[in-house]
Amino acid sequence: MGPPERAGALAARRDRRSRAARRLNSLPIGVFDSGVGGLTVLRALTEALPQERFIYLGDTARLPYGTKSADTVVRYALQATDQLIERGIKCLVVACNTASAAALPAIRARHPELPEVGVVDPGARAAVAASRSGRIAVIATEATVRGGAYQAAITRLRPQAQVQSLACQLFVALAEEGWSEGAVAQAVARRYLDPLFDVPSPPDTLVLGCTHFPALLPAIRSVLGQSIAIVDSASTTAAVMRELLAQRALGCVDSQPREAASPLPRVQFLATDGTARFAAVGSRFLGRGIDERDVTLIDL
Amino acid sequence: MGPPERAGALAARRDRRSRAARRLNSLPIGVFDSGVGGLTVLRALTEALPQERFIYLGDTARLPYGTKSADTVVRYALQATDQLIERGIKCLVVACNTASAAALPAIRARHPELPEVGVVDPGARAAVAASRSGRIAVIATEATVRGGAYQAAITRLRPQAQVQSLACQLFVALAEEGWSEGAVAQAVARRYLDPLFDVPSPPDTLVLGCTHFPALLPAIRSVLGQSIAIVDSASTTAAVMRELLAQRALGCVDSQPREAASPLPRVQFLATDGTARFAAVGSRFLGRGIDERDVTLIDL
Repeated sequence: MGPPERAGALAARRDRRSRAARRLNSLPIGVFDSGVGGLTVLRALTEALPQERFIYLGDTARLPYGTKSADTVVRYALQATDQLIERGIKCLVVACNTASAAALPAIRARHPELPEVGVVDPGARAAVAASRSGRIAVIATEATVRGGAYQAAITRLRPQAQVQSLACQLFVALAEEGWSEGAVAQAVARRYLDPLFDVPSPPDTLVLGCTHFPALLPAIRSVLGQSIAIVDSASTTAAVMRELLAQRALGCVDSQPREAASPLPRVQFLATDGTARFAAVGSRFLGRGIDERDVTLIDL
Repeated sequence: MGPPERAGALAARRDRRSRAARRLNSLPIGVFDSGVGGLTVLRALTEALPQERFIYLGDTARLPYGTKSADTVVRYALQATDQLIERGIKCLVVACNTASAAALPAIRARHPELPEVGVVDPGARAAVAASRSGRIAVIATEATVRGGAYQAAITRLRPQAQVQSLACQLFVALAEEGWSEGAVAQAVARRYLDPLFDVPSPPDTLVLGCTHFPALLPAIRSVLGQSIAIVDSASTTAAVMRELLAQRALGCVDSQPREAASPLPRVQFLATDGTARFAAVGSRFLGRGIDERDVTLIDL
């Protein structure tokens, strides 16, 4: 093969590789949650990554994960991950605190090639950045608190931190009912939070360690006042995903605006049960209306 | 065969039949619920039927049923029924309003030989007996309300009845959290019940159409006052089961007291997830302590 032929072969191989890369890069980002709470994370992702497409899977048939055992949560999370990989994703966001805490190691072990981000480490990072005193309170589901993942993630970043964790199951029901403000939300917030903060040296930072809880921010803020920093995982998780896409050169490479480049919807919704309820309750968490016809019912 | 031989053969056959009947009659009664709420029904059953043994199956891995679609609830209820039949039961109590409303016809169709009782018809019967005006309010889960089963069961018994139904999801979370009294429970009860009862011609009867709700009776009573009749399905369901056992001659026939007659436990508990949580939260609904070691983890 003479020099011109060799140059041509090399160019063709480069071309094939770049076509393959473009195909991979144009795949959506998979987002997985036990239900609709993870839509608060999806919202931050769509804002931070305007070029990207997403598939969101809500395992609504088996929610809540927050009261289930770790073994069960791991099994469910692996099924959801397999389903998203089968449909074609370039990376994964586990947008459920309970599943992030319990199942990320198992997901990594089964799919070492898949770039993935949970919500616990980003939430811990946001807490450590916000806290001056190092006294940090975490509110989450029973399963997340029991697993101690936030405690571990925060003290990895700041070994002297004093972390207190509290399960606040009723906040989940309140957020799903849409009762995020008013007398009931405040009474619940007071009952949960007073014992944590009404003490001589209270925490200076509160981590909302469940994706449902940002919906209750007004009630929580009214109980805690302005001096406590309140952080959640959504925006930090989106920032971590942006870094990851840049590091792995996985960003969507279409030079045209996404809408013009692709006939596919920006976000595809999958739910394992109750598409009408997913659309109705999910709209509150996503911050924009979801049409039930855009939600596909799947079986895991 | 001469007369003495024939008499002997007949006696032997009668004996075999009566041994088979005794075997059937000594089987436990199966009780199925989505989680721990049905333990309020089990409690009434154990009180009303002191000779009987019970197997209670709580599908804790997949609770709550109350926000799931009817198709999914039917599938889960059939799996639970099959599991109980496999373990040997003489009849079935579907101690979950959502599953009673959605799945009893499917259970009957698959197992026409199995005597079974749900909790909706007994609850409707109790309501009709208690109401003078015929204005009846039903509070239940989303799925029970959506299916309209109480409405249908009450108007079958009393065609002129005016039935209003309301989904009260937060009551489930409150009961599970053990917050059955105090400021939060009262604020929630007020928010749900005032629009139903604070009207010119209010209902005179309230049906607690979810097995979790009897736990909240003090808060509900404090909001409604003494003039409203409050009924639930537990004791009526136990009475219906007692009648059914008598009609079918299925009662336990041991003449000795049950404890002496059988080395088996009075109640066997099965849960599909979280035996520790089942024991801890379940004790509140059963009204006596449950030892975690008496709860068997099963997979459906």
